[in-house]
Amino acid sequence: MLDEIKNQVLEANLALPRHHLVTFTWGNVSAVDRQQGLMVIKPSGVEYDVMTVNDMVVVELETGRVVEGSKKPSSDTDTHRVLYLAFDSIGGIVHTHSRHATIWAQSGHDLPAWGTTHADYFYGAIPCTRLMTDDEINGHYERETGQVIVETFHQRHLSPTDIPAVLVNSHGPFAWGSDAHNAVHNAVVLEEIAYMGIFSRQLTPTLEPMQQTLLDKHYLRKHGKNAYYGQ
Amino acid sequence: MLDEIKNQVLEANLALPRHHLVTFTWGNVSAVDRQQGLMVIKPSGVEYDVMTVNDMVVVELETGRVVEGSKKPSSDTDTHRVLYLAFDSIGGIVHTHSRHATIWAQSGHDLPAWGTTHADYFYGAIPCTRLMTDDEINGHYERETGQVIVETFHQRHLSPTDIPAVLVNSHGPFAWGSDAHNAVHNAVVLEEIAYMGIFSRQLTPTLEPMQQTLLDKHYLRKHGKNAYYGQ
Amino acid sequence: MLDEIKNQVLEANLALPRHHLVTFTWGNVSAVDRQQGLMVIKPSGVEYDVMTVNDMVVVELETGRVVEGSKKPSSDTDTHRVLYLAFDSIGGIVHTHSRHATIWAQSGHDLPAWGTTHADYFYGAIPCTRLMTDDEINGHYERETGQVIVETFHQRHLSPTDIPAVLVNSHGPFAWGSDAHNAVHNAVVLEEIAYMGIFSRQLTPTLEPMQQTLLDKHYLRKHGKNAYYGQ
Amino acid sequence: MLDEIKNQVLEANLALPRHHLVTFTWGNVSAVDRQQGLMVIKPSGVEYDVMTVNDMVVVELETGRVVEGSKKPSSDTDTHRVLYLAFDSIGGIVHTHSRHATIWAQSGHDLPAWGTTHADYFYGAIPCTRLMTDDEINGHYERETGQVIVETFHQRHLSPTDIPAVLVNSHGPFAWGSDAHNAVHNAVVLEEIAYMGIFSRQLTPTLEPMQQTLLDKHYLRKHGKNAYYGQ
Repeated sequence: MLDEIKNQVLEANLALPRHHLVTFTWGNVSAVDRQQGLMVIKPSGVEYDVMTVNDMVVVELETGRVVEGSKKPSSDTDTHRVLYLAFDSIGGIVHTHSRHATIWAQSGHDLPAWGTTHADYFYGAIPCTRLMTDDEINGHYERETGQVIVETFHQRHLSPTDIPAVLVNSHGPFAWGSDAHNAVHNAVVLEEIAYMGIFSRQLTPTLEPMQQTLLDKHYLRKHGKNAYYGQ
Repeated sequence: MLDEIKNQVLEANLALPRHHLVTFTWGNVSAVDRQQGLMVIKPSGVEYDVMTVNDMVVVELETGRVVEGSKKPSSDTDTHRVLYLAFDSIGGIVHTHSRHATIWAQSGHDLPAWGTTHADYFYGAIPCTRLMTDDEINGHYERETGQVIVETFHQRHLSPTDIPAVLVNSHGPFAWGSDAHNAVHNAVVLEEIAYMGIFSRQLTPTLEPMQQTLLDKHYLRKHGKNAYYGQ
Repeated sequence: MLDEIKNQVLEANLALPRHHLVTFTWGNVSAVDRQQGLMVIKPSGVEYDVMTVNDMVVVELETGRVVEGSKKPSSDTDTHRVLYLAFDSIGGIVHTHSRHATIWAQSGHDLPAWGTTHADYFYGAIPCTRLMTDDEINGHYERETGQVIVETFHQRHLSPTDIPAVLVNSHGPFAWGSDAHNAVHNAVVLEEIAYMGIFSRQLTPTLEPMQQTLLDKHYLRKHGKNAYYGQ
Repeated sequence: MLDEIKNQVLEANLALPRHHLVTFTWGNVSAVDRQQGLMVIKPSGVEYDVMTVNDMVVVELETGRVVEGSKKPSSDTDTHRVLYLAFDSIGGIVHTHSRHATIWAQSGHDLPAWGTTHADYFYGAIPCTRLMTDDEINGHYERETGQVIVETFHQRHLSPTDIPAVLVNSHGPFAWGSDAHNAVHNAVVLEEIAYMGIFSRQLTPTLEPMQQTLLDKHYLRKHGKNAYYGQ
């Protein structure tokens, strides 16, 4: 079942080392089939260079029950599930510990919109979540990680479509998109702007976010009904 | 038509990922045929690894009209046009979001001439443009981006031949040269000196620009009638 | 003798340049056979690309006497011996001058636990040893280097199993693990968190160590009897 | 004539891009035949990937006269000549604009001995030369560049054997060694410690040079009559 999605999820996972976003078995990509209420995700702790399409695990979105696959799904599966259930516009999710996005996450800062590279993909700052409580960490940790992401978007009135990524405090980034491939694309851009942000702030420690007009222009040049970038 | 220039523009575009100056489809190179008043530029949003010479788009310099090619030209086409029309000594232009030049652009700083690597190619600081007004951004944005570059060179009495690059504020670099190949060459050097500049300033926060005599010596060793570098 | 361990040690040494942890002949990996009281280590100053299994040197753990191999063992052999004799849970050791771990060592700072990447592998800060005395440096230097590592773990009540790495002040990192392969794995992670730590501190100069609860959660998710990461 | 040295110089030049020390045609390596009073050096401005042994230029050490080769020698030839004439223990010289050594040169700082990686190859800080005077720059510039290097070593009572590199202020590094190959080796190490130095100082802005005892120990472990590193 879900052969096409399983292939996409495999391909998207294999794209992570190619884009230098992961070390060893770190990182995971999933995609969702909303009609069937199922999600496909990478198995836990399997090396990228031996991973096959049959290692992909099919999980029920509502319950987390494994419905196909002989391997255990990624330990972050419950975070993915919470995000799919809360953000109904997204089709794929990627989690990495990519160096520079993780640096922002570890430092506990939002990544401000500081240039058109950012504005071409993200319609505002990438938020960093609050610290989790001891109860959240000691409870259903992976599920609570998802909840604190959802809380961040709700409390700040952010759209997961317009800002397809988040920095989990003391941890690392999650990015998402219309499908698994697009999620990886956004994770690559996030890493790029995270790198540039560190040193833009070094050069100008008081750097203000970019002009709203310019943010609007670049984001809407590539997204929405008046987009005119690409073929 | 313009077969030779189209091949050069294709080759120059393909050189961008090879020099690690671009991610995905970012970046674009063009070249001009001044006799015919035509310019050749990369199509918008096409992947570098599938791009062919037939994807190159021929555009009328004065009007921006596409005169050959089935694809839409780069969304930055109007910026290129304005530069060719204002700077009559240049034959090729490249735009990238290369990491370190973009960091300087995002931080809103000129990149000072801090060493002979800089002086070998650029006869003074690489200027950073002023912020654009809301009217400019909401109007003919790409054309206005070109205008603000031209304004920067005119107001500061800079020669586009002697300083073949600019940092567009909150955006990224444009570099140019005698042809498409030379423009890419300058973009690579710009990225190199942008990297070194960040950390030269970290080591000496009050670093003054290099001596004018040394800047003269190195620039003129490679450029102009008394040049003696190379064969 | 020790054919299997010699092959493992060779493979682990060859993994060092592959993971970009070493330059030239720098770095060395060893493994121990505790039953026989023997250790296998890389020869001194031999290039990685010509090294063969027959170059591996077998050394008596208690005495340092070479019992097999025609080459001189690594000049750091005595440091390895001291660590094996003091830390009886470890099976392999790696020493490198990997860039970012060495930066922390040179700066004389512990590397704090600043995120879950760290917590997944190291149960607390990576300690930096005190400066060695002139007598220690002028005496049995390599042995004393081992002693100061052991002293650091004893005085701070650290477990070499839970914190499988150390930063030797003004020098560089040693990492270890259950075997040679696992030691290299830990050395790679150390380099990764050392990189991220430099810039996490740059973004938040007063950054506190991560929450103890989160450190517990991530470390114990992958280690010990309640671990649930992997297959 | 000088076939063996020409081959060595070619090989050493080709090693520069392999070690990521140069961009385009930047950088040059030479070697000397002291008996014949001749030096072999890379031609000026020739691409590394098309360079052959016949492109190497043979130059008379005392006069700078080209005695073999159809190409113009490197524009830095006179700097190499001055160094060979003043430092009679050296057999090869390399000049690059390698990123991190150049950053130290541009910032005008000596690179302090901050760890054993440094001490394994350089017996003290790498000096940065004083700024050149206008007369020196406008006169025989390349020769004067050599003179200011020699002056730096003489005035500070430094041995070019023990400290086989220098940072030319506002310019970049020169490194040297017993032959062309060894000079490149030292240039690679210089780049490595220059990188680590930038961030060691970032972590500890008041970082003192390493202990003299430890510097002695590591330098003398690899150099001189009591060396015991390697086979």
